[in-house]
Amino acid sequence: MRSDLTEFSDPILLINFKTYLESTGKRAIELSKKAEVVGRDQGVKVAVAPQFCDLEQVSTSVDIPVYAQHVDAVAPGAYTGHVLAESVKAAGADGTLINHSERQLLLRDIDKSVERARSAELMTVVCAGTSKLAAAVSLSEPDMVAIEPPELIGSGHAVSKANPEIVKDSVRRIRAVNPKVRILCGAGISTGDDVYAALKLGSQGVLVASGVVKAAKPEEIIADFCKAVRRFG
Amino acid sequence: MRSDLTEFSDPILLINFKTYLESTGKRAIELSKKAEVVGRDQGVKVAVAPQFCDLEQVSTSVDIPVYAQHVDAVAPGAYTGHVLAESVKAAGADGTLINHSERQLLLRDIDKSVERARSAELMTVVCAGTSKLAAAVSLSEPDMVAIEPPELIGSGHAVSKANPEIVKDSVRRIRAVNPKVRILCGAGISTGDDVYAALKLGSQGVLVASGVVKAAKPEEIIADFCKAVRRFG
Amino acid sequence: MRSDLTEFSDPILLINFKTYLESTGKRAIELSKKAEVVGRDQGVKVAVAPQFCDLEQVSTSVDIPVYAQHVDAVAPGAYTGHVLAESVKAAGADGTLINHSERQLLLRDIDKSVERARSAELMTVVCAGTSKLAAAVSLSEPDMVAIEPPELIGSGHAVSKANPEIVKDSVRRIRAVNPKVRILCGAGISTGDDVYAALKLGSQGVLVASGVVKAAKPEEIIADFCKAVRRFG
Amino acid sequence: MRSDLTEFSDPILLINFKTYLESTGKRAIELSKKAEVVGRDQGVKVAVAPQFCDLEQVSTSVDIPVYAQHVDAVAPGAYTGHVLAESVKAAGADGTLINHSERQLLLRDIDKSVERARSAELMTVVCAGTSKLAAAVSLSEPDMVAIEPPELIGSGHAVSKANPEIVKDSVRRIRAVNPKVRILCGAGISTGDDVYAALKLGSQGVLVASGVVKAAKPEEIIADFCKAVRRFG
Repeated sequence: MRSDLTEFSDPILLINFKTYLESTGKRAIELSKKAEVVGRDQGVKVAVAPQFCDLEQVSTSVDIPVYAQHVDAVAPGAYTGHVLAESVKAAGADGTLINHSERQLLLRDIDKSVERARSAELMTVVCAGTSKLAAAVSLSEPDMVAIEPPELIGSGHAVSKANPEIVKDSVRRIRAVNPKVRILCGAGISTGDDVYAALKLGSQGVLVASGVVKAAKPEEIIADFCKAVRRFG
Repeated sequence: MRSDLTEFSDPILLINFKTYLESTGKRAIELSKKAEVVGRDQGVKVAVAPQFCDLEQVSTSVDIPVYAQHVDAVAPGAYTGHVLAESVKAAGADGTLINHSERQLLLRDIDKSVERARSAELMTVVCAGTSKLAAAVSLSEPDMVAIEPPELIGSGHAVSKANPEIVKDSVRRIRAVNPKVRILCGAGISTGDDVYAALKLGSQGVLVASGVVKAAKPEEIIADFCKAVRRFG
Repeated sequence: MRSDLTEFSDPILLINFKTYLESTGKRAIELSKKAEVVGRDQGVKVAVAPQFCDLEQVSTSVDIPVYAQHVDAVAPGAYTGHVLAESVKAAGADGTLINHSERQLLLRDIDKSVERARSAELMTVVCAGTSKLAAAVSLSEPDMVAIEPPELIGSGHAVSKANPEIVKDSVRRIRAVNPKVRILCGAGISTGDDVYAALKLGSQGVLVASGVVKAAKPEEIIADFCKAVRRFG
Repeated sequence: MRSDLTEFSDPILLINFKTYLESTGKRAIELSKKAEVVGRDQGVKVAVAPQFCDLEQVSTSVDIPVYAQHVDAVAPGAYTGHVLAESVKAAGADGTLINHSERQLLLRDIDKSVERARSAELMTVVCAGTSKLAAAVSLSEPDMVAIEPPELIGSGHAVSKANPEIVKDSVRRIRAVNPKVRILCGAGISTGDDVYAALKLGSQGVLVASGVVKAAKPEEIIADFCKAVRRFG
C-alpha cells in the first residue's frame, strides 16, 4: 500500500544506488540492511533506491522505504524492455525516482510517469537540474521534487554549500506553484555538514549516491548524515 | 555460469513476457512454471523473458533459461535508471534480448550492449526488423539473432506464414556474414503450425509473446508449440 | 532584429508547413506568398513556419514573420546535424517553434532551446499537449505557448470545438504562473468558425497546418481564417 | 540530378561545417567558395557539408558537391521539425551525411534514412565509429561509408596516424560484405600528412571539420590537404 505523505513529515535521506557494482545484487541487500540499522538506531528516515533487478530482494530484506530509479511512461501492454509501474510495485517498491539527470525524459513523459506511478500507488520523486525546472515539474504534483544541479553530481562539492542559492531559489519557485510537495536536494553531498546545510536552506530531505555507495564504510557516512538530520531537529 | 551454446543445438522457444499484466509479478512466476512443466513434459527447450523486477524470483523458481528483455550499453557507474548487465546476471538471468522492436537502440549501443552482456556472461539475442538489418547485427556476433517484422508483431499473422520470404532471406543474408549465430524468428506466431513453418524455413527457434501470454490457457498453447517443435524433429 | 512583442497585440495565425511535399521548396515560397497577400488584404497577422532548408528563400521572398519548426538546445560547436539558433536567425527567421508534439524534447532541452533561441533574438513558441504542461513550459518564459492536444492534430476536429475546456483550462493555468506569455492553440483547426471559437476561448492566436497546406486552395482557407479573426475584432 | 558514382573515382575531401559559427550563414558561403577555388586550382574533388539553413545559398553559390549533415528517416507528411530528404534535395544538395557520431540514429533509422535519401536522389555517406559497425552499415548499400572513431574527433590526433589499424581493419571488413561502397575516414585530420596517410591505408577520401573550419586561413589547410591527395596520385 502507498505510504502516507504524513509519514514523511521528518527529513528523509534517500540513497540512490545507481548502477555501481558496490550496490548491485547481494551488495544491494547488504547496503540496504546497513541503511536500515543506522536509520533505526539514529531515529532518522532512510530510504534506498536500488536497481530494478534488486527491488524484490531488497524489499523483502529490509523494512525501510524502497524506491525504483525510474519508471517508464507506459501502461501495461506490448512494451518490451520498459519499466512498468505495476511491476515495480509488485516487486515491493514504495516509490520511484523520475527524470533523474542520468535518465531524463520528455516533458510529456515526466507527467505520464508520475500518473502511471501514482495509479500503481508508488510515491514519486521527480528530479530537476534547475530551480525553474523544479517548479515546472512540481506542476505534475508528484509527492517530492529533488533539485540536483547536474554539474555537481558526483563532484564531492555539495549543492548545499557550492550553490546554496539554487536550493533557496528552488524552494521559493516551487512554493509559488505548489504548497505541498516535499522538496529534496542533492548532488555532491558527502558530509553531515552538507546535509545540515541542505536542511537549513529549506529542503526537507537529501538525495545521496556515490558519497555513501562508494564509501569504505557506508554505515559511518550514513550515521554521520543521520546525526546531521537530528542536529537540525 | 554462461550456458554453453551447444545446449541450444535443439530449437528454442522463447516467450517474451513484455509488460503485460498477465505476466507481471506473481503471474510471471506462475507462467514461467507452466512453461517449465510443459517444456519438460514435451522434451523441448522453452525459455522465458520476464520484466527486470521479476528476474530474480523467476530465476529461483524455475530451472529453464531466463532472459532479460533489454540491457543498456553502460558499464558499472553513475547511470541511474539504467539496466546494467551485471545486475541482470546477479538476478540469475542467463541471457537478454537486445534491440527489440519495442526497445530499439542506436547502432552503436546494440554493439556495446552485446559486449556488455557477454562480459557479464549473458547469452544475447539481438532483434532486427528486416533481413538486411538482421545480417547487420549478426556482425556483432551475438549468440542469436531474431528476425521480427514489426508490422506483424502482435498481429496474429505469423511471420512464418505471412512473410516466409523474409525468414528465408534472413537466413541467407545472415549466413553470408556469420556462419554460427543461431537464427530465431518471431511476430504473430500463434499456432503450432506457425512454429513448424518457422523451423521449416530455417530458423532455429521462435520468439513468441501475446500468443502465449494473453491466452486463456497458456500451457495449452505452449504444448501446441512444443509438439510442433518435436514434429519438426 | 527581433520583432517586438507589442507587434503581436493582435491575434496571430501561424501556419506550420511540417514536412508536407505541398509546402516544400518552391511550393513553400508560393504558399508563403499567398499567406502574405491574404494577410495583407485582410489586415491580419499571418506567419509561416517552413522547413529549415526553405527558411532563407521564404524569408527573402515575403515580408511576414517566418518561424523555424524547431531549434536544438545546442550552442555553436561540434554538433553535426543539429539546428543551431544562430543558423536559423542568419537564414532570416524571426522565431521558432519548440517542442512541437511531433518533435518533443527533454524537459531540460525545452528550457535550453528557449534560452538559445532568445540569445539569437528569435521569438519562441513552445508547444504542449495538455494544459498542465502548457503551464509548465510557460515558466521558461517563452514569447508564446501553444496548446495542441496531440490526439486532435490533423484530425479535422478543432481543439476549440472538440475540447474547448482544454483551451480555457490552459489560459487559466498559464495565467496563474505567467501573466505575459501569448497563448495560442491548435490541432484540427480547419474552418473560420474553429478560429473564431479559439479566440473566443481566450487564445490569442492559432496554429494551423494540414487544414491550410493540404487544401486545394490554401488562399481561400487562409482568407476564411482571417475573416474570423476580424470578426472577433 | 544525382551525381554518378564514377564522378568519385578520385579521392574526395569532404568538409563538415558542423554548427560552428565560423561556418554559419554568410561565412558558410565564403568558406564554400574558398573550398571551390582551392579544389579547382589543385584539381582535387572538394565537397562541403553546411548546416540545413545554409544549403540553398551554398548550393547556388558554388559548383562543388554540397552535402547535408543529416536527414531524418521520414517520408513527406506530418513530421514537424524533421529534415526531409526531398527538402534537402530541393535546396540543391547533392548528398547527405547519415549517423554522424554527433547525430546517431537507431539502427533501423540508418537504413530508412539511406532509402529516403536515395529515393530523393541524394548521395549517402553513412558514418560509423568502429570497423565492425562500418561493415554493418555498408550492408545498407550507401554510396560511401565513413569510419570515424569518436574519441579522435576534434582531437587533433588523426585517425590515420593515431589508429591506422582501424582504417585498415575497416577496409577489410567492409570489402568482405560490400565490394563497391566508397570508404572514407575521418577524425582528427589536420595536416596534409594525415590525409596522405589516410589514403595510403586504403580510404578513398577523408572527412574533415575543425581542422579546416577553425583554421585562421582555411584555404591554406585545404590546399595542404589537396596537395597530399595529388601526391598520393
